[in-house]
Amino acid sequence: MMFLRIEFRWHIPIILPPMNPLPVVQTQIPPDVIDLGLGNPPLSLLPLDLIHTSAQKILSQNENSFLQYGTEQGDGYLRAALADSLSKGYEFSVHAENLFITAGISNALDLLCSLFTKAGDTILVEEPSYFLALRIFADHHLNVIPIETDEHGLVPASLAGTLASASPKFLYLIPTFQNPSGHTLSQERREQILQLAIKHNFIIVADEAYQLLHSSGEKPPKSFGAYIDSQRVIALGSFSKILAPGLRLGWMQAHANILNRFANSGLMDSGGGLNPFTSAALRGAVASGGLEANIGKLRLRYANQIAVMDEALHRHLPQAKYILPHGGYFFWLEFPEAVDVSELRKRASNFKVDFRPGALFSSKSEMKNFMRLCFVYYEAEQIEEGVKRIAVCLNSM
Amino acid sequence: MMFLRIEFRWHIPIILPPMNPLPVVQTQIPPDVIDLGLGNPPLSLLPLDLIHTSAQKILSQNENSFLQYGTEQGDGYLRAALADSLSKGYEFSVHAENLFITAGISNALDLLCSLFTKAGDTILVEEPSYFLALRIFADHHLNVIPIETDEHGLVPASLAGTLASASPKFLYLIPTFQNPSGHTLSQERREQILQLAIKHNFIIVADEAYQLLHSSGEKPPKSFGAYIDSQRVIALGSFSKILAPGLRLGWMQAHANILNRFANSGLMDSGGGLNPFTSAALRGAVASGGLEANIGKLRLRYANQIAVMDEALHRHLPQAKYILPHGGYFFWLEFPEAVDVSELRKRASNFKVDFRPGALFSSKSEMKNFMRLCFVYYEAEQIEEGVKRIAVCLNSM
Repeated sequence: MMFLRIEFRWHIPIILPPMNPLPVVQTQIPPDVIDLGLGNPPLSLLPLDLIHTSAQKILSQNENSFLQYGTEQGDGYLRAALADSLSKGYEFSVHAENLFITAGISNALDLLCSLFTKAGDTILVEEPSYFLALRIFADHHLNVIPIETDEHGLVPASLAGTLASASPKFLYLIPTFQNPSGHTLSQERREQILQLAIKHNFIIVADEAYQLLHSSGEKPPKSFGAYIDSQRVIALGSFSKILAPGLRLGWMQAHANILNRFANSGLMDSGGGLNPFTSAALRGAVASGGLEANIGKLRLRYANQIAVMDEALHRHLPQAKYILPHGGYFFWLEFPEAVDVSELRKRASNFKVDFRPGALFSSKSEMKNFMRLCFVYYEAEQIEEGVKRIAVCLNSM
Repeated sequence: MMFLRIEFRWHIPIILPPMNPLPVVQTQIPPDVIDLGLGNPPLSLLPLDLIHTSAQKILSQNENSFLQYGTEQGDGYLRAALADSLSKGYEFSVHAENLFITAGISNALDLLCSLFTKAGDTILVEEPSYFLALRIFADHHLNVIPIETDEHGLVPASLAGTLASASPKFLYLIPTFQNPSGHTLSQERREQILQLAIKHNFIIVADEAYQLLHSSGEKPPKSFGAYIDSQRVIALGSFSKILAPGLRLGWMQAHANILNRFANSGLMDSGGGLNPFTSAALRGAVASGGLEANIGKLRLRYANQIAVMDEALHRHLPQAKYILPHGGYFFWLEFPEAVDVSELRKRASNFKVDFRPGALFSSKSEMKNFMRLCFVYYEAEQIEEGVKRIAVCLNSM
């Protein structure tokens, strides 16, 4: 139903400084450089209208409890709407009482380290893994052991081998459309890894930022949220890649016993929920189906961009090997061993292009001949042009 | 300037569930109980209109960069407007480059512990201190040493004595209208403590949640933000007590060398700024002077509530000694030594009243005959009635 609303309101104009010398966004790219390394969505895909309508709804009601200290587990309306939406997206029942609203996955990882580990504790990660998660673990002085992966994700035999001598607090996994590799952990391996977590009593922390971003008709295996009854799983979701990163909003899905450890922390007791205002502002966007519509739009667009990047790579960089991703954000290119991608990057600015070298994602200073490219940030012509520039840069070596 | 705006817009109605079984706010008080222990502002003082107007301004512009990963130090517009506003409120020049936007003081303390300490490190706190800050420190497994205070705040001689044998990472202080005591650290002691911080190389973490909430004409000593050039000070501010807690927004003021340690952390590198969306939504409320007007309103109201509580205490609880607070949130009552306030609290629910026992704020299991009362949450009649109920409860012992 749509209707015409006529508003008569007194508005007090707010004057903002016309010019602001201080930055707003995290990454400033020189306008003539194509940075295929960036892992951000472009501004054109951040749905201001949807968020505006949703926020307007809550702000214009005569009710302001979302301005008070929020409940530790997060806004009840948002959790109820999110549980409904995830139940559809994940194709299994997600319950609001198993959701805990966070200020994004990075925030959840930081809290997890604070509450579940001490300096010197061992944790396990995939080799390669998301380099900024590795930075968070380093800030907490954790002992990080990398576990081998292949095109089907983490190798359970390698994990079992490590567990013979290590007692990790948790295993950090990006199971679906992994960052950086784009690979997806197979269903069979998910179950094997869960059995190992039960046997060796560690938690699987599944960073599922890309779980809903499958670009082909074929869906990835179910979210690790399907296994929370084991009490060995924390599945981390985020609005950053399916709505907007600036919201700093995400969720944990876990057994109540695990969520209670977060809810009863000093931080939560003192500050209340992690983001009540933004949660309330998004209630409508989730409850109305606007979030799902946005995800649908992203899937179509990203499928097209994957095809464009695939074609550009075939045309300009035939020496790069890769497995075509079916979702997420990234292509993971393997070059002949002689190519040191970190060295290549030093020349890249001369060619007005950038990318991320594989070594950045390695806990063992390996992956030197790998390169991560992101297909979501640029339009088709720029993707093609960026890949071409990388080829020219490579040929100049 | 005000003008009449007529809006013709197509609105897509967003349907929210009519009833929601899940909580939104942190604290649920039975309707017939008066909880004078609560440290929240009441809903009636959370300025929805101001926040609505401010958020509406940014959401209705054709610019959405605040939805992107934000710059690590926080939204440039908000920092510029906040620097201007604080310069007026603090009566010294505050520079935007020395401000770092946080998700509230609890969040800042948690980050500080993660980045500046390891489990087992020593920190110093006031005795008594804010009990939930103590919980955050406990979650980080810190060794907490309490330092004596009196009616002029932390006792420098006591601090110097402790420093003879301890090497703390930081000293956590609530220098102005302290929680729970309501006391304010004198100017002379501020300078003495700063000299000790320089000599012994530790950081003063000043939690200044109440700095701007002086209720009398007499202003408290300057914010510790005046001493950031020493590189030994982090002054923490918050919008929770001067605007609304649900925003989860605050700031750190410190030397650039200290702020860079936060900005270069894994968490900030990964997630970007801590709350870009809410920061943008509040730009207008700060830049327009709306924040200052709101603080002015709170000061008048709280001055009245202090007078009401003072009178009620004189009338009903003459056995309680206290120093009249000139701002902040709290009265700190000292009862005769025989009165165990924690024991008293066990009976309080029978009398439909509540408060916080002093022992909660002690790192030494002392302060058993003290009680914290908050004067901001209730209307005058309820303050009077609450104090009366405490007196009846006490007389029943």
